[in-house]
Amino acid sequence: MRQPEPEPQSFDRVLSSMCTEPHPAARAAAERFLATNPGDPATYEAVAELEARAVEGLATLAEHPTPADATGYVTSGGTEANIQAVRSARNRHGESDDTSGERDVNVVAPASAHFSFTKAAALLDVELRTVPVDDEYRADPDAVAAAVDDGTALVVAVAGSTEHGRVDPIPELAAIADEAGARVHVDAAWGGFVLPFTDRDWSFADAPVDTVTIDPHKFGQAPVPAGGLLAREDAALDALAVDTPYLESRSQATLTGTRSGAGVAGAVAAMDALWPDGYREAAERAADNADWLAAELADRGYDVVDPELPLVVAAVPESEFAALRDAGWKASRTGTGALRVVCMPHVTRATLRAFLDDLDGIRR
Amino acid sequence: MRQPEPEPQSFDRVLSSMCTEPHPAARAAAERFLATNPGDPATYEAVAELEARAVEGLATLAEHPTPADATGYVTSGGTEANIQAVRSARNRHGESDDTSGERDVNVVAPASAHFSFTKAAALLDVELRTVPVDDEYRADPDAVAAAVDDGTALVVAVAGSTEHGRVDPIPELAAIADEAGARVHVDAAWGGFVLPFTDRDWSFADAPVDTVTIDPHKFGQAPVPAGGLLAREDAALDALAVDTPYLESRSQATLTGTRSGAGVAGAVAAMDALWPDGYREAAERAADNADWLAAELADRGYDVVDPELPLVVAAVPESEFAALRDAGWKASRTGTGALRVVCMPHVTRATLRAFLDDLDGIRR
Repeated sequence: MRQPEPEPQSFDRVLSSMCTEPHPAARAAAERFLATNPGDPATYEAVAELEARAVEGLATLAEHPTPADATGYVTSGGTEANIQAVRSARNRHGESDDTSGERDVNVVAPASAHFSFTKAAALLDVELRTVPVDDEYRADPDAVAAAVDDGTALVVAVAGSTEHGRVDPIPELAAIADEAGARVHVDAAWGGFVLPFTDRDWSFADAPVDTVTIDPHKFGQAPVPAGGLLAREDAALDALAVDTPYLESRSQATLTGTRSGAGVAGAVAAMDALWPDGYREAAERAADNADWLAAELADRGYDVVDPELPLVVAAVPESEFAALRDAGWKASRTGTGALRVVCMPHVTRATLRAFLDDLDGIRR
Repeated sequence: MRQPEPEPQSFDRVLSSMCTEPHPAARAAAERFLATNPGDPATYEAVAELEARAVEGLATLAEHPTPADATGYVTSGGTEANIQAVRSARNRHGESDDTSGERDVNVVAPASAHFSFTKAAALLDVELRTVPVDDEYRADPDAVAAAVDDGTALVVAVAGSTEHGRVDPIPELAAIADEAGARVHVDAAWGGFVLPFTDRDWSFADAPVDTVTIDPHKFGQAPVPAGGLLAREDAALDALAVDTPYLESRSQATLTGTRSGAGVAGAVAAMDALWPDGYREAAERAADNADWLAAELADRGYDVVDPELPLVVAAVPESEFAALRDAGWKASRTGTGALRVVCMPHVTRATLRAFLDDLDGIRR
């Protein structure tokens, strides 16, 4: 089956990804820990120690009340973290931890929530109640309040939505959830390494949030796979544990079994190198680039969604979008077909100038 | 949060892991593709192409009728592959693909099945019917036949069990499943790269098997994370698809979202380097080592389970086990407390001699 090896893509023209080039220190650490498995901590002790440091680092970013004792783990990515948050809330709702199938549980999420919640609901056999967003693409608290009931195990809030980079009104949503006896999950998979440098309310300190998704392999500049799940209380993860014969550890709360030590070591190295000043600079640069691109696109007459976090959406016609793809730009579209540019750290001002030059050429 | 960086463990004394040192070519490929995401094939085209090659390679090993057109993907590991097999069977059972919660579905698995099936059942809200194994630690067909009924979506068969390395009587189990209208999943996560060099029946060619788990990151000598899920029919994966706005691909059948390109590239490079002769040599060397260790332990008076695949179980007392751990040996135990040694490629005859020397020292 030997065939010529393809080259990995360059990031030069990647505007569509929520991942980025890993920090050099993170890449080096990932390479060193490539042959380790934090899912088997009794065998792979060093990487298990690193995972505790990764969780403490993430908990620091997310303003957990006690970062050194925070409960959580490095997931395969945001999807696993979101699935696990739904699963934990399902299992804890009415304290029916069993699998008797007698549950009638729902999860309320804004239409802006990532499709991993659809996946989670299909997987976990819970009802997903998707409620409309407001004119600014944020969860509408009135719609959420109207959707929750006694069966609501979880209210999902988004801190940096995939399509528009929006932050939901999290304290308001948390108050609604509290009233309904539901738990609150914040999906900050993409936003989590940018939000600490904004005035937005999203963290454990800002609202009575139960669980948070925050991914080192997005704005954290760690290599894939390094997602993150954090919980305010140990009980949130305890509700996920299954017994583990054959391992010298007693139980496992993760969704996957064998896990990547490269991701864990890379996440720690990235946070060591970049928290907080490196992340602050990256967040500010990305925000400047997004604001600049939005203004340039608006100047050209496109209908632009004003960026809140570093993500620009503009109503570029399908024919122009197709021509940009043909020119090698890895851009993507929202559900309504609008151009979507994610201003990750690898997306420089020079990249965006070249992109606009190509767009101008296409429009001529 | 900067602290001294711990060193990754050496594999010198690791007898407990079902993972191993990656092949050098696999490590190099993984390092090259560290910053890629096969979960976003429109952005990361090269690694998507590699994934198609990985699936073809795995399908060749598992004797899929049409390897070049086989359906499957590179999972985060065996747990994801097993969960997805259960999920697919659940969704397809009675063709109720929805999430209405009206299902009353069960899965029948031998007690020797990996704990990921317990995890899958808890996650997916299906009943797991665990049936006893026979005196040789293999699934007992009579017990499986007694457990299946109209609600049985899936019969799980193990080809290389985690505790004892046993291969179930797969054609017999498949016949029972067929009779009951259930699908058949073979968990060859660990065994899949050894079984092609044995006379055991386990593959798509050997029985009417629907899905197979086969992990490059175990005996395939690929780096973590690289598991594998294969299906005989496209419909098995179609039953897992959820819609994907924001991605230029239409739907996603994987459990995770962002995935590791390092694992995919590493899997392809390992198979290119080792299939078939390198894997045959590794399998034969491992089998010889297991037979030798089993004989040595039996000579010392321990009760030894005769190895079928390269895994040795012996009733070593708790005090001796503890002393071996203290001496730095990463060994593990079965559910009944017996010593379990997995003869992976990194476990050489010299390693086993050193292990026995330490054991002899402890017994003196």
